[in-house]
Amino acid sequence: MDFSSKLLENAVNEVSRLPGIGKRTALRLVLHLLKQPSDNTKYLTNALTQLRTEVKECKKCHNISDTELCHICSNPNRKEEIVCVVEDIRDVMAIENTGQFRGLYHVLGGKISPIEGVGPQNLNIESLVNKVKSGEVKEIIFALSSTMEGDTTNFYIYKQIEKYNITTSTIARGISVGDELEYADEVTLGRSILNRIPFGDSLKQ
Amino acid sequence: MDFSSKLLENAVNEVSRLPGIGKRTALRLVLHLLKQPSDNTKYLTNALTQLRTEVKECKKCHNISDTELCHICSNPNRKEEIVCVVEDIRDVMAIENTGQFRGLYHVLGGKISPIEGVGPQNLNIESLVNKVKSGEVKEIIFALSSTMEGDTTNFYIYKQIEKYNITTSTIARGISVGDELEYADEVTLGRSILNRIPFGDSLKQ
Repeated sequence: MDFSSKLLENAVNEVSRLPGIGKRTALRLVLHLLKQPSDNTKYLTNALTQLRTEVKECKKCHNISDTELCHICSNPNRKEEIVCVVEDIRDVMAIENTGQFRGLYHVLGGKISPIEGVGPQNLNIESLVNKVKSGEVKEIIFALSSTMEGDTTNFYIYKQIEKYNITTSTIARGISVGDELEYADEVTLGRSILNRIPFGDSLKQ
Repeated sequence: MDFSSKLLENAVNEVSRLPGIGKRTALRLVLHLLKQPSDNTKYLTNALTQLRTEVKECKKCHNISDTELCHICSNPNRKEEIVCVVEDIRDVMAIENTGQFRGLYHVLGGKISPIEGVGPQNLNIESLVNKVKSGEVKEIIFALSSTMEGDTTNFYIYKQIEKYNITTSTIARGISVGDELEYADEVTLGRSILNRIPFGDSLKQ
């Protein structure tokens, strides 16, 4: 692309470094900002700068938070002894939206992935093991995505904590509610038969 | 969406005000920035702020520029007497990429669109008419998109300048190079037959 302005080129280059945003989209976004009142650009850049410099990581669960302890960890009504292990903060938001979980979370910050150069030491695994070691946790629920990396991460953590004899579980895999059986993939359908639950239990949900 | 942090919520809200970016995409972008070194956020916000505060509009063609006159208008090798009228700077970039045009541009900054509240007074039409009036322009090429709004804008400008007796033309509409005839829409195909060109001319291009 041949830009008429160095400033424009620079802005487009920076915006197009964001994931999933190419040069054309970046140009469209930047031209939009130029057409809007300059206050809009100020609000946007201030919000991003403030977030990047002031946001904290909850020291207990590694969730993103404005305070030392996030609003979930500091809520006295949540069951401290059940910890749900998730990959990142979006998973926390997704599970919170269901309203079905009253325990605490532990955000790993990723999955073990040798291809992307992410090892156990890059994730918040040690602090999870310490929580288990201290005896404050009675059950760990693994809620990572069921990919090779997710399964590897589950297994790695499991090996670290199995000696402490706590309950470990993983979220159920099965056919989505409302889905047609014929369109489900074989692995999911197979697992949903192997992990079938008593019919009476399904009525309660 | 239920955010664990006001700062995060604020940043996501600001990013999702950009066109074509919803809350989910905004969250993904913002979390990406949080994972990257904080310098990346600084580069991005600086580039946007600098662009918004320092960029100029070329006083001759209204193109975006770092200087008073853009690099096209200040190029002595371009033919000043031929002016191509376009909607916005992306069209300038698209035409420049073809390398076929050696005249100057005039960026209107939009199209007349009563539905969106854009009237002639919101566009750079007066300065175009003044250019024609002063006698420095010999030919106007209309290169707006061929929509209702584009055609209206073309016609409005044409009515303003027809008394000055200069050449006016519009870019050719027809079947795209490489396209199959059977998939072309009727209007385009019909126009391409009405506006047929001598076969010898097509060989020169």
